[in-house]
Amino acid sequence: MRNVKVVLEYDGTEFFGFQYQPGVPTIQGELERVLTRITKSPVTVHGSGRTDAGVHAVGQVINFRTEGSIPIERVGAAMNALLPRSISVVSAEEVSDDFHARYSAVSRLYRYDILNRPVRSALLGRYCWHVRQPLDEKAMRRAMEPLLGIHDFAAFGSVERDGDCTVREIKSLCLERNGERLVILVRANAFLRSMVRAIVGTLTDVGLGRRDISDVAEILDSKDRSRCGASAPSMGLFLVEVEYENEDS
Amino acid sequence: MRNVKVVLEYDGTEFFGFQYQPGVPTIQGELERVLTRITKSPVTVHGSGRTDAGVHAVGQVINFRTEGSIPIERVGAAMNALLPRSISVVSAEEVSDDFHARYSAVSRLYRYDILNRPVRSALLGRYCWHVRQPLDEKAMRRAMEPLLGIHDFAAFGSVERDGDCTVREIKSLCLERNGERLVILVRANAFLRSMVRAIVGTLTDVGLGRRDISDVAEILDSKDRSRCGASAPSMGLFLVEVEYENEDS
Repeated sequence: MRNVKVVLEYDGTEFFGFQYQPGVPTIQGELERVLTRITKSPVTVHGSGRTDAGVHAVGQVINFRTEGSIPIERVGAAMNALLPRSISVVSAEEVSDDFHARYSAVSRLYRYDILNRPVRSALLGRYCWHVRQPLDEKAMRRAMEPLLGIHDFAAFGSVERDGDCTVREIKSLCLERNGERLVILVRANAFLRSMVRAIVGTLTDVGLGRRDISDVAEILDSKDRSRCGASAPSMGLFLVEVEYENEDS
Repeated sequence: MRNVKVVLEYDGTEFFGFQYQPGVPTIQGELERVLTRITKSPVTVHGSGRTDAGVHAVGQVINFRTEGSIPIERVGAAMNALLPRSISVVSAEEVSDDFHARYSAVSRLYRYDILNRPVRSALLGRYCWHVRQPLDEKAMRRAMEPLLGIHDFAAFGSVERDGDCTVREIKSLCLERNGERLVILVRANAFLRSMVRAIVGTLTDVGLGRRDISDVAEILDSKDRSRCGASAPSMGLFLVEVEYENEDS
């Protein structure tokens, strides 16, 4: 039995998220369909995490186990030949049996793109959130400082099962303006469901002057999901990279 | 009668080019339909140039004349409300009566994007040419040197009417690699039809080792359209900017 690690890109626009759901297009569903055909036996795909509907990836990682005999160096091309154009395999490699895309991951890096100008974009519409009013990125940068580090992020996301731990560690968080574009990068050991979008939505309220800079720390302390801002829309969010302790494992 | 200058973005993927053609979606057709509705009388749109089917723009310039009474500061928003999402107005301003988007232009800047890596991209497919084999950008850079300046570019493009002049001036031409992406920027007073794509196609032949560096100068000198390489595909090409002598004219 071989264990195969695959790095993927996808345009999430037309998918109902990563996780398999019967009857609708999902990333996991497409991958399992294609891998079952290539290996000629049923395949279960494990992702590093479940991206929501509309969320993109440039570095999602999955793994699967197979007894199929296809040479590892041909897996990527075989998958790309069968996958829709909105999913592409960047690399595929054989890894040790204990590698698990989700449980072996030590951190995930997400990027959120905002187009901040009065008029919409004809070219970037699928890949950013369009915010028409000017955003004060300095206020946003100050507001996000308290989020760095180990905290109970219950106010900024949900868990799969009631009672699951909501403590996460944000290892880095930065915001850069590049002309009309605002880019937010956030790395954490793991994320709660919709955590990045809830943080970006709340920071954007600060950037628009609808909330005070100090609100973010108060919301964090409250651990109350109803206190944070509306989640930023999914089309601006990209899973950029998943880090593993031993990248050669 | 007012003369209005408009700067536009568009995603050319689903259009049959800039120029109006009955029964199919074109940029000019969409603009004239929308402007006729806004101004309540027939409008003719003049573009700085005709982009081909599938070519994008981030800074196309058009002008039109109208007796309509809509305030100039509302033209952009009114157009964006009626245009498809794949076309957006960046700015609109009133200009002097002698301004013409095409005849007043002193230069045009085009960008061509190549994704140079073995695997296709799930996210950039609409906006670049995917070249799988490694490109030697140093050879491409040397090959393009003879194109700079005033030349008869008959070998690299066609004219609207037989006998039209095929002399153009390339004012700047550069090629940069940014990781997996190759970006070619070319500014000229004006371009022949499919000139940028013919140049990029020929340079790519050099980058792949299919042609010698010296071939480009020979093709230029031959003035023979059949000598140059196949045109690079339209999805990698962007009209970036049109320059006018007096930007406030």
